[in-house]
Amino acid sequence: MHRKVIIIGSGPAAHTAAIYASRANLKPLLLEGMLAGGVAAGGQLTTTTEVENFPGFPEGITGMELTDKFREQSLRFGTDIETETVTRVDLSSKPIKVWVEENDGPEDTPYTCDALIVATGATARKLPIKGGDFYWQKGISACAVCDGAAPIFKHKVLAVVGGGDSACEEAMFLTKYATKVLMIVRKDHFRASNIMANRALSHPKIEVMWLQNVVEVLGNGKLVTGAVLRHSETNETTTIDIGGLFFAIGHTPNTSFLGGQLKVDKEGYVLATPGKSTTEIEGVFVAGDVQDKRYRQAITAAGSGCMAALDCCKYLEELES
Amino acid sequence: MHRKVIIIGSGPAAHTAAIYASRANLKPLLLEGMLAGGVAAGGQLTTTTEVENFPGFPEGITGMELTDKFREQSLRFGTDIETETVTRVDLSSKPIKVWVEENDGPEDTPYTCDALIVATGATARKLPIKGGDFYWQKGISACAVCDGAAPIFKHKVLAVVGGGDSACEEAMFLTKYATKVLMIVRKDHFRASNIMANRALSHPKIEVMWLQNVVEVLGNGKLVTGAVLRHSETNETTTIDIGGLFFAIGHTPNTSFLGGQLKVDKEGYVLATPGKSTTEIEGVFVAGDVQDKRYRQAITAAGSGCMAALDCCKYLEELES
Repeated sequence: MHRKVIIIGSGPAAHTAAIYASRANLKPLLLEGMLAGGVAAGGQLTTTTEVENFPGFPEGITGMELTDKFREQSLRFGTDIETETVTRVDLSSKPIKVWVEENDGPEDTPYTCDALIVATGATARKLPIKGGDFYWQKGISACAVCDGAAPIFKHKVLAVVGGGDSACEEAMFLTKYATKVLMIVRKDHFRASNIMANRALSHPKIEVMWLQNVVEVLGNGKLVTGAVLRHSETNETTTIDIGGLFFAIGHTPNTSFLGGQLKVDKEGYVLATPGKSTTEIEGVFVAGDVQDKRYRQAITAAGSGCMAALDCCKYLEELES
Repeated sequence: MHRKVIIIGSGPAAHTAAIYASRANLKPLLLEGMLAGGVAAGGQLTTTTEVENFPGFPEGITGMELTDKFREQSLRFGTDIETETVTRVDLSSKPIKVWVEENDGPEDTPYTCDALIVATGATARKLPIKGGDFYWQKGISACAVCDGAAPIFKHKVLAVVGGGDSACEEAMFLTKYATKVLMIVRKDHFRASNIMANRALSHPKIEVMWLQNVVEVLGNGKLVTGAVLRHSETNETTTIDIGGLFFAIGHTPNTSFLGGQLKVDKEGYVLATPGKSTTEIEGVFVAGDVQDKRYRQAITAAGSGCMAALDCCKYLEELES
């Protein structure tokens, strides 16, 4: 159960760390999680359609395909991958201890390691609206790509909540299945980049509802059938008929298993040394979206995963010498 | 001749910046250089064989192929690429001015831009040895991959100078052509990672000469035929018969065109704000190996290119609003 390095995560940061650590003969264990943070192994990339901006893929590649390639590359160089969700860690002394869901009792033996790379990413936020919990996964989703193709959403009017890049992306994706996509934006403008905003605005199946907020989701007891909106300025309410509601309103870094043992900023992102992957605890490194609220791209996550592995190699070499 | 953004460089950092900047509708101009820094467009990746650690390519990919993909992806989203080498810039006022080799006269009109991304990389070092200049490219090279397959090196004993990862990589590559590869290492151990060191040590065609320094290259007036080595401790000299000598002894960041207008550290690397791509001059951003002496990987360069483009987008949005 003891490893030199354990990597927690399953996205571009975790796998790039694994590729580098395994090529450095460190035989890392990667704990990819079983729906950890509510997302399938592979992380947020699995909730994206076409990835056009990961360099090296001029024709684009789906998030799922890219994730599969990362995983295959980690395995090729000798990474052990376990599909287990980490519940808690003990960073207070060496070796570092890591417990997983199936092995979380007070007398269970944890995994132990000399160095830990935390690359657990961030998870999409959900709006706390009336009916939201009841209809979750019965017409409400935070992942158009995962769920949009489901029969319950086909040939329906669907709504996307949010005004950023991912809201535009999700809306575009849903047009493949929906008769119409309503984008519900609480301001009078998009937060999205021009390129994404223009694509959404010019799409014949997308209609933007500016200055609107979802306050309640309506249904027939089995599935979503509509939603109540409130205007941001007039407070006037409107009811819309929809067959599905998709949240695209930001993310929460996945740090609960840390139990406060690493310093985080006010939004909950782990604080790394700027420009490095080191933390205030020796032998604990962070990479990817769990420590990045500024860039949050697959390629920046991958770069930081490499940094974490190289910083980790240096730390272990120092330990050994 | 005016652009919102000019990107100088041609490697993973420059192209990732171009992909992001062009997708953000900034219509960037990328000046890739004509053998700038002595390296073909594409940068140091073009001097590597198989790239095994760029995530997304589990089977590996050659540096040239990966470079071609980056370039194609930049072009796809509307980057203009010019094969021109930048000679000097004026960062003292806006717009920023950029002169290239073919347009460097005092009365020539420079390119101008609102924001500049410097991603010019670093260039391989050469040892200043007797005969080194005369036999340069007549049996001496700093790039096994570019030159190793040339007829003058085939079926010869070749020597590689250096003890790091790239020295091991170059030696491995040369075994494809050489009858034997001597690695000349000035210390009694490798600086390389374990994985690379072990590969080199266990290769039947590679022989390591520890504690040796090349002091002179010998030849017949046309091509290299040997070299004189001096022992690091005893100062004893030895002559070896070789058909080629390859330098793999580190890199110099490509900053001469900056004329000291950006702060650099003592090794000449541009100083960026740690964790960002910004410099002490507003509107000037740096990415890749020209600012990175710690990680220096294609994937970290790519990540930092993305950061530079996103930082640049924010800067331009602020300028416009």
